[in-house]
Amino acid sequence: VTYVRNAWYVAAWASDIGKGSVLGVQILNERLVVWRSITGELTTLTDRCIHRLAPLSLGRCEGEKLRCMYHGFLYDRTGRVVEIPGQDRIPDGLRVSVYPSTERHGWVWVWMGDPAAAHTHLVPPVPGMDRSGYVFGRGQLDYNAGARLINDNLLDLSHTSFLHAKSFRMSETWAREHPKVTSRERGVVSERWFRNEGALGVIGSEPKVDTYFCFEFFVHGVLTQSFKTYALGTADALNGERPDDDPTQEYFTTQAVTPLTDKTARYFYMFATRQRRDDQTEYDSAEWATIETGFSEDKVMIEAQQRNIDLAPDARCVATAGDKCAILFTRLVKTLVRQESTDPTPEGT
Amino acid sequence: VTYVRNAWYVAAWASDIGKGSVLGVQILNERLVVWRSITGELTTLTDRCIHRLAPLSLGRCEGEKLRCMYHGFLYDRTGRVVEIPGQDRIPDGLRVSVYPSTERHGWVWVWMGDPAAAHTHLVPPVPGMDRSGYVFGRGQLDYNAGARLINDNLLDLSHTSFLHAKSFRMSETWAREHPKVTSRERGVVSERWFRNEGALGVIGSEPKVDTYFCFEFFVHGVLTQSFKTYALGTADALNGERPDDDPTQEYFTTQAVTPLTDKTARYFYMFATRQRRDDQTEYDSAEWATIETGFSEDKVMIEAQQRNIDLAPDARCVATAGDKCAILFTRLVKTLVRQESTDPTPEGT
Amino acid sequence: VTYVRNAWYVAAWASDIGKGSVLGVQILNERLVVWRSITGELTTLTDRCIHRLAPLSLGRCEGEKLRCMYHGFLYDRTGRVVEIPGQDRIPDGLRVSVYPSTERHGWVWVWMGDPAAAHTHLVPPVPGMDRSGYVFGRGQLDYNAGARLINDNLLDLSHTSFLHAKSFRMSETWAREHPKVTSRERGVVSERWFRNEGALGVIGSEPKVDTYFCFEFFVHGVLTQSFKTYALGTADALNGERPDDDPTQEYFTTQAVTPLTDKTARYFYMFATRQRRDDQTEYDSAEWATIETGFSEDKVMIEAQQRNIDLAPDARCVATAGDKCAILFTRLVKTLVRQESTDPTPEGT
Repeated sequence: VTYVRNAWYVAAWASDIGKGSVLGVQILNERLVVWRSITGELTTLTDRCIHRLAPLSLGRCEGEKLRCMYHGFLYDRTGRVVEIPGQDRIPDGLRVSVYPSTERHGWVWVWMGDPAAAHTHLVPPVPGMDRSGYVFGRGQLDYNAGARLINDNLLDLSHTSFLHAKSFRMSETWAREHPKVTSRERGVVSERWFRNEGALGVIGSEPKVDTYFCFEFFVHGVLTQSFKTYALGTADALNGERPDDDPTQEYFTTQAVTPLTDKTARYFYMFATRQRRDDQTEYDSAEWATIETGFSEDKVMIEAQQRNIDLAPDARCVATAGDKCAILFTRLVKTLVRQESTDPTPEGT
Repeated sequence: VTYVRNAWYVAAWASDIGKGSVLGVQILNERLVVWRSITGELTTLTDRCIHRLAPLSLGRCEGEKLRCMYHGFLYDRTGRVVEIPGQDRIPDGLRVSVYPSTERHGWVWVWMGDPAAAHTHLVPPVPGMDRSGYVFGRGQLDYNAGARLINDNLLDLSHTSFLHAKSFRMSETWAREHPKVTSRERGVVSERWFRNEGALGVIGSEPKVDTYFCFEFFVHGVLTQSFKTYALGTADALNGERPDDDPTQEYFTTQAVTPLTDKTARYFYMFATRQRRDDQTEYDSAEWATIETGFSEDKVMIEAQQRNIDLAPDARCVATAGDKCAILFTRLVKTLVRQESTDPTPEGT
Repeated sequence: VTYVRNAWYVAAWASDIGKGSVLGVQILNERLVVWRSITGELTTLTDRCIHRLAPLSLGRCEGEKLRCMYHGFLYDRTGRVVEIPGQDRIPDGLRVSVYPSTERHGWVWVWMGDPAAAHTHLVPPVPGMDRSGYVFGRGQLDYNAGARLINDNLLDLSHTSFLHAKSFRMSETWAREHPKVTSRERGVVSERWFRNEGALGVIGSEPKVDTYFCFEFFVHGVLTQSFKTYALGTADALNGERPDDDPTQEYFTTQAVTPLTDKTARYFYMFATRQRRDDQTEYDSAEWATIETGFSEDKVMIEAQQRNIDLAPDARCVATAGDKCAILFTRLVKTLVRQESTDPTPEGT
């Protein structure tokens, strides 16, 4: 499995790393320590003290520095060793690697490729937990499956009709009709109308409405989905084009799939719905329970899929009409990976 | 480890797969889905959807068909894809493998070899849970050990005297005297008398009786044991030959050892004793508890044996006089495996 | 990782193997059975019956012999098979290996090298749980980390200042000043004074005293540490030399790190303090809780260190001034291992 390295990966929820906090994470098989100094500066370093390879994530933030709590080596924010207890001289070049990191949309992002190419405008422009007028729910799952399988799941939402038949109870339109799919420079977009169905496509829900659904999927594993409900007939009146007017109902969800190792991944997700009252602060608990059920259905299926693949590594997939979005994204990834190998320090675009 | 592929393996208890049920099993490293249609027809397929390799065992029976519940591919009983949601044309040749399967003696059996050779008269002719006049108990254990080690255990019952000294409390006759062992076309038979011992060979049990014990072991890992108790002196009066008369006490047990992977196995077992009253329907609970204790003694020992073998893969076993039955069976397996490779589609015998 | 084989390794607490007891242990990847006969004689054999490789540690002591409880093979204390149930003749040469074993200082020790070199005077001369006038505590931890990492931890006590900052609350003197380190024939010695600190070096403890600390570390992974407290000024009065007088406070701890496999180890430890009253028999429970906390801090760090090493097998350590003791010990091990390969049956020294 190949992942684009010149990309921002979600390492953690920003609110989980307060001032002075130290957190060990893993991305693309590499162990990293993400920490926030007393003044709030984020730093990401290789999570391995140069002395005896102990994890710095078991260390302690001291002001703007991070101390390994095994034998006390002290590192600054550039990864340089600035103190060795019991030794006056510090040899040149004692350092761990620094990974560019930044905070956006409620997440801490880490750049896994060439630091010179780590432009913050390449952080996927997704709506996050900082939007006003919404209530939010968030969740996180660790998968015993490769990130690629989760990405494939999210790129081909025809599974909604079957895998989530009992939880989200959405119609077979997801599988029977195909969305309009468009390539972007660092992602793919998928758009569609659900005509004359329950709000948000829920089977049996009344009154019938038209729902516009759009998702945008960015390298490497970040996406946002938007559901907007309109009066019956809107889709046809717009000739199936994208609506501009305010919807009667709306929610969006932003998600990130971070590869931990080749066969494990961490899946971050948040959902947002419009506040129903000014004082509403929490996601509706019944709706949230349905979301969690749906997400566990994906996990069960995808982890079983991974086990199947491990047991039959030579088995080949068969592409279908519904796979278009996944195929476009895979092609984009290949292009970007090839660019990285020929031009390892590209300008951001 | 080599197993005979042209053989019926027990996949499950038949009663565990009702109409419309779908069950994932593993045999000889292969993942299979066993399902029963609405009309009761059993089908066994490769448990891997051709689309994205998701397990069909997480699927849903629809009439006489099986639907993958990831993206909705529909399979018929021959393994052919008959529907791809969202796609009108189904390319030729989209299918998964079918394994012959049948129901006998209370079990679902799957044929792992050449389908053309899958004759149902090759199902081992063992007494099952369908015999009238008996009460039954059944159990099932998953072993972290190869099926071969469990087979060896069952083929050399001299272990009864030592391993089960505290549970079954049987005499050292099991180890000190050797049974009469005979080869059959697809198995081995072992017979013996226990003279002047407690009923069923239990130490200290009164009055003393003669017990005739026989087991037949079939490729590849299916066996039935029979204990029949007679009045003292019967064994000598019959010159140690097999008795024809009705015993005063009797039970039998039928067991199957199914290799899941090279180092894991599923062990199915049932015990049957004569009904003591017409209204007796359950196995005596104290006797059953003893049986379960005995079976867990085997599991502890055999799993430890497997770990020992893994740690010392070059260590060799030493054959003894008590190993005759295991040696005959191993020889039979070698012969059958060799036949498979030279004549892969034999006629059933 | 290379370990000296011509060395005594701690297999178990002697009191855990009573007369007639049978215990399975693992040392240097080898499975051993340690058992004590009815008359109290210790024997250590390969834990693998020659018949079918079942573990003898699931066996039964019968007088001065050990019976495999799978099929009943009987072994004497020299590892020879003396009975095969159901078979009169016992072929020559049926035996398992014997490992020299002995009981000293409250532990059972096993010699993993050439039996001809197994002199008991090579058992490390450490104080054990048989000293009078002390109360004892003991503990044991199984590590998911190689013994070498635990040895390194114990050879470089500068970690005390950081890793145990919250539990043992000892001063940074451990890390800031270096001990006097001396090589011995089969070990290293480290000595130091803590001047004008709390008793036993605990931060903030009053009154201030001088504490003399010494540890001796023996091949391959056995050590004893001694803490002795004196009146303020004693260290200077002695010019930093080793004290002869009775201390005002004292404790010692003896520990052993036994490699189970390349990446697992069993860590035995005992602590002893002077009896405060004649009738005191138990270690102070609050002090013991602190000790257990400190030992779990080591375990968390060292297991994380092992995981880091596994994930970055090419990463190199950086030596510091505090590593002197570890470096001397590593050099000693290399010398002894080289001697073993050129002169496999040395005289004890």
